[in-house]
Amino acid sequence: MEILSLIEAKKQGKALTREQIRYFAKGAADNSIPDYQLAALLMAIRLKGMDARETADLTMEMAASGHMLSPDVGGVPVDKHSTGGVGDTTTLILAPLVAACGGKVLKMSGRGLGHTGGTVDKMESIAGMKVELPEDEFVDIVRRTGCAVVGQSAHLAPADKTLYALRDVTGTVDSIPLIASSILSKKFAAGAHAIVLDVKCGTGALMPTLDSAIELAKTMADIGAHAGRRIIAVVSGMDEPLGSHVGNALEVKEAIDVLAGRTSGPLKDVALYLGSQMLVAAGVQPDEKAALTALEEALNSGRGLEKLKEMIIAQGGDGRVCDDTGLLPAAPVIRKVSAPCDGYLEKVDGVALGLAAQQMGAGRIRKGDAIDPAVGFVMEIRMGDHVQAGDPICTLHARTEESALQAEARILNALTFSPAPTAPARLLHALVTAQGVEHL
Amino acid sequence: MEILSLIEAKKQGKALTREQIRYFAKGAADNSIPDYQLAALLMAIRLKGMDARETADLTMEMAASGHMLSPDVGGVPVDKHSTGGVGDTTTLILAPLVAACGGKVLKMSGRGLGHTGGTVDKMESIAGMKVELPEDEFVDIVRRTGCAVVGQSAHLAPADKTLYALRDVTGTVDSIPLIASSILSKKFAAGAHAIVLDVKCGTGALMPTLDSAIELAKTMADIGAHAGRRIIAVVSGMDEPLGSHVGNALEVKEAIDVLAGRTSGPLKDVALYLGSQMLVAAGVQPDEKAALTALEEALNSGRGLEKLKEMIIAQGGDGRVCDDTGLLPAAPVIRKVSAPCDGYLEKVDGVALGLAAQQMGAGRIRKGDAIDPAVGFVMEIRMGDHVQAGDPICTLHARTEESALQAEARILNALTFSPAPTAPARLLHALVTAQGVEHL
Repeated sequence: MEILSLIEAKKQGKALTREQIRYFAKGAADNSIPDYQLAALLMAIRLKGMDARETADLTMEMAASGHMLSPDVGGVPVDKHSTGGVGDTTTLILAPLVAACGGKVLKMSGRGLGHTGGTVDKMESIAGMKVELPEDEFVDIVRRTGCAVVGQSAHLAPADKTLYALRDVTGTVDSIPLIASSILSKKFAAGAHAIVLDVKCGTGALMPTLDSAIELAKTMADIGAHAGRRIIAVVSGMDEPLGSHVGNALEVKEAIDVLAGRTSGPLKDVALYLGSQMLVAAGVQPDEKAALTALEEALNSGRGLEKLKEMIIAQGGDGRVCDDTGLLPAAPVIRKVSAPCDGYLEKVDGVALGLAAQQMGAGRIRKGDAIDPAVGFVMEIRMGDHVQAGDPICTLHARTEESALQAEARILNALTFSPAPTAPARLLHALVTAQGVEHL
Repeated sequence: MEILSLIEAKKQGKALTREQIRYFAKGAADNSIPDYQLAALLMAIRLKGMDARETADLTMEMAASGHMLSPDVGGVPVDKHSTGGVGDTTTLILAPLVAACGGKVLKMSGRGLGHTGGTVDKMESIAGMKVELPEDEFVDIVRRTGCAVVGQSAHLAPADKTLYALRDVTGTVDSIPLIASSILSKKFAAGAHAIVLDVKCGTGALMPTLDSAIELAKTMADIGAHAGRRIIAVVSGMDEPLGSHVGNALEVKEAIDVLAGRTSGPLKDVALYLGSQMLVAAGVQPDEKAALTALEEALNSGRGLEKLKEMIIAQGGDGRVCDDTGLLPAAPVIRKVSAPCDGYLEKVDGVALGLAAQQMGAGRIRKGDAIDPAVGFVMEIRMGDHVQAGDPICTLHARTEESALQAEARILNALTFSPAPTAPARLLHALVTAQGVEHL
């Protein structure tokens, strides 16, 4: 086979065969196809698209381009993936809750770049917590406790690794077939058989419009149908952070607060909704309603928090944080931000908030950067809330006074107040499966 | 400036600015833009196109990406370029004829790959002929004799050199803006101010259909209008070789035969027509009719042949070949090919004929291959001619008996005979300038 014939075919808008896609994925994985030919093909795919069968084939061939796990976790391995959002720590809430209800959650998470660390970075704010574990060890933890949160092996889906890096520098990031196959190839390679996807839409999200978010969600659900894996996608809004806490240890604290029943609100609601879809996808519960009831029972009884503690201990961490969040790293500078005027909170620039957290040290700017687990902030108002000038609206947890001052300016710039009443942010937009789209 | 912003813009179908195109050409010339980003942009250009202004800008910026000649040849430097054809030695006829009529022909030619060598390779079949000359020397020859045929400097249009090589391996050859700007950037850099283009159409040509050939011709004429250079494009057929001789020394012989008045036919007709357009483009003659009269007079008086001799001597070659073509290299094996049946010659597969010549040793398969100047063949029939089985239809000039036998089989396979009368091949299809298209 010759890569030029693939480029020619896609350039003319033809569908690539499974064999052609296998050749492409293998050549990307072992670097036998030069970057410039991969780049030309990626641009042709970006401009001419891929149909559902091609996209599923690309996903499966990228997954098969390296080591594939088939972990024996004593049930259907279920995973959850979010396309990214500020203050979104749903994983740390739903993983133990789903495990407490009989699900087997093997959560692999990349470290990546961004406003705060990935889920594994957040977990590392807990003393002793090990997220880089040998395969047999984390599989054993899932089998025994029902959940584990570990770093993603660099050996999974090497084709995706090559293409992901190349897309970033060739203007081919914004292709739905390429986004969908990239996300799911890693999940397939990690052995997930049931996957719940949280596709964010809104300003600053990967998918800015509801239509594009639904299109990505549907593409991924269809890949599941082609590949024989159960995929459910939820389209949710990211007009403002889901939780009030932004920062690594702060988000762990908020997750514990939710599991302890001390905190409710959008973070809890969305975590329970996504968790219910995981139980349905994994076949543990027959429907959303039964699944929600089971999850609420696990939460209210404290079994969810107990499960988190069990997992933390199994991964070498200090499980006492579940009883005393004061054991988490704390920042030396605490500073209140006050409302600059009377009014209703109308808009939140999530990207700017994320940038504020990143600049405080909560996220990486460059690959390999260290993360400061203690820093971040806690928002005290949500969209639609009314404040009076001088009311506290946010608490900063900073490393230095200077960093706190800069973050204060960034956060105030990210908020828009209106004299007239405004609406709260919309949380859930749609539930998407291979069968269709249900608007929520 | 950032290459990603150019890729983004073109991906969305936007026109690139002159400044963006300059950045692109410079980055291709000095390799400061990585191949994979150039490849992504080339594919975006292939799929989204470029308008006339962008294409002209790209041509001018690629020309300006290296050394630009402004040769003082004592008149308007005029050049002619053909998009390729088998047995097409018009340059060796029209260059001396145009020079004899007062034109200043600076013909730079690449060596390239193909069925036979380029014009410089053909010239090298003449003993002593030097085609790699320092700039001041060949400019002086054009000033004194009116014409010179030299190899193309590797330093001209380095941006095109990078992009040309990359297009070949990324499926982006078949883009009219990229083809047009590639051809003309080298001509502009070589200092041509009037250019006549011979755009071939037909099976095996760069442009297979008349419409696509006219589109390329119009694109190039429009570039001339934008760039302030006079460009005339002729669209001609390549259903069969223009001349009867195919091979390097054989084509030189045929050119001398035409200039000596011993041979007429399509090769002479097309050479005179293209030469007349060169005289018009260079402003030496007011119109096609006056130009043709001048060229015919130069040919009939023998001044054209005298001019060729003058140029050969100026370039160090043995000018006596103009009086005695027996001085050209000759092949040891001469073999007649006979008609396999009665009938009319209906079709000629020019690509297969070219391959036969290449396999005999007349053309390069790989860059740097040596060329055998003596080998090739002479067709003795043209499309529409009637033959009887056993009539001689072709004379082979081969290095070995084995090579002659292989060539015979290839040539017979390339010809189709019909029992019913067939039409001769169409030579000239259209004359294209920035003002419009005239069908001939």
